[in-house]
Amino acid sequence: MLLCDIGNTTASFLDDQKFYSMSIEQFLSYQPTQKIFYINVNPNLEEKLKEQPLFINLAPYFNFDTIYKNLGVDRIAACYTIEDGVVVDAGSAITVDIVSNCIHLGGFILPGIENYKKSFANISSRLKCELNTQINFDAFPQRTTDALSYGTFKSIYLLIKDCAYDKKLYFTGGDGQFLANFFDFAIYDKFLIFRGMKKAVCENFKL
Amino acid sequence: MLLCDIGNTTASFLDDQKFYSMSIEQFLSYQPTQKIFYINVNPNLEEKLKEQPLFINLAPYFNFDTIYKNLGVDRIAACYTIEDGVVVDAGSAITVDIVSNCIHLGGFILPGIENYKKSFANISSRLKCELNTQINFDAFPQRTTDALSYGTFKSIYLLIKDCAYDKKLYFTGGDGQFLANFFDFAIYDKFLIFRGMKKAVCENFKL
Repeated sequence: MLLCDIGNTTASFLDDQKFYSMSIEQFLSYQPTQKIFYINVNPNLEEKLKEQPLFINLAPYFNFDTIYKNLGVDRIAACYTIEDGVVVDAGSAITVDIVSNCIHLGGFILPGIENYKKSFANISSRLKCELNTQINFDAFPQRTTDALSYGTFKSIYLLIKDCAYDKKLYFTGGDGQFLANFFDFAIYDKFLIFRGMKKAVCENFKL
Repeated sequence: MLLCDIGNTTASFLDDQKFYSMSIEQFLSYQPTQKIFYINVNPNLEEKLKEQPLFINLAPYFNFDTIYKNLGVDRIAACYTIEDGVVVDAGSAITVDIVSNCIHLGGFILPGIENYKKSFANISSRLKCELNTQINFDAFPQRTTDALSYGTFKSIYLLIKDCAYDKKLYFTGGDGQFLANFFDFAIYDKFLIFRGMKKAVCENFKL
């Protein structure tokens, strides 16, 4: 079973156990040679995907209980195997979704960590710097790089903690592992979205 | 007394009681006709300001107790009249500084609200939208505009609340009034930085 998760910057593939990814630019010239179940949140790629019959859009096959308008299919897929918990997908954006008894209670969005960095660099050349991933949340920062790191990481941390209460936390996405480390009982699952996609395939297709 | 606070996007003036401002582009062709006490955080303007003897840089005249490396002079000025409290300057960046017994304990930085918006728009055209300033922090969002607003405003709110404990909160800057409304006992002072500048002038110059 070949699965493909197409985002704003990257297309990721899972071919049974084998994972690989390519930039959206590379993906534009990608030609499938077998059936490929995909989800896509990139508005620029919709036309390309419709043209090629080997691309099968999984979006209509998620039986997911939510009242959220136009919930991104990647967020649906990430939540699709969770009965209870908070799902954090930390990529170019950080999406946070709350699931209780298999019902989606809502969710929110923050910029991804790289986009905080870009944002600071755009504000002023003085704010253009690497973030300190070892930042201490218990002491007030005393230099710019720590001030930016504390602002970014602690504001993300506090908002996730605030919505999590005692729920299980599931992290995925490029910065998922890093953010999971701020929490005592967090699960990092690189393949959370693919797990949801696989579930939708198994529920709807005879392979 | 003519005061000028030069930031990354705007130069603001206080001429006794009269306030006015101009874009940095406009400021580039501004020629003073009287002595003007200024503070500047914009690296691109340092040369222009040195050339003109009517511009008097106030930066060396703040007698401010901090161990923070290269603390922006606008943040020093905003804290300069506060004995105890948290000072939030919400402009193109949001700076937060903690003062106790006239000693600066440290501070942190977040993107300004407009820069969260820009950041979302850059991530995806689907995230390009106005933020909902009436967002309810007690219910999980059910549509994109609320998800972005909740993420932005509540993460800023929680981080400020976290550092404030029972300290007084002072807000200034373009979004200062808006952010102050999230707190029960916050003071909004449009002229906080000018008050600090005025204090430094009075301590150091015979007018």
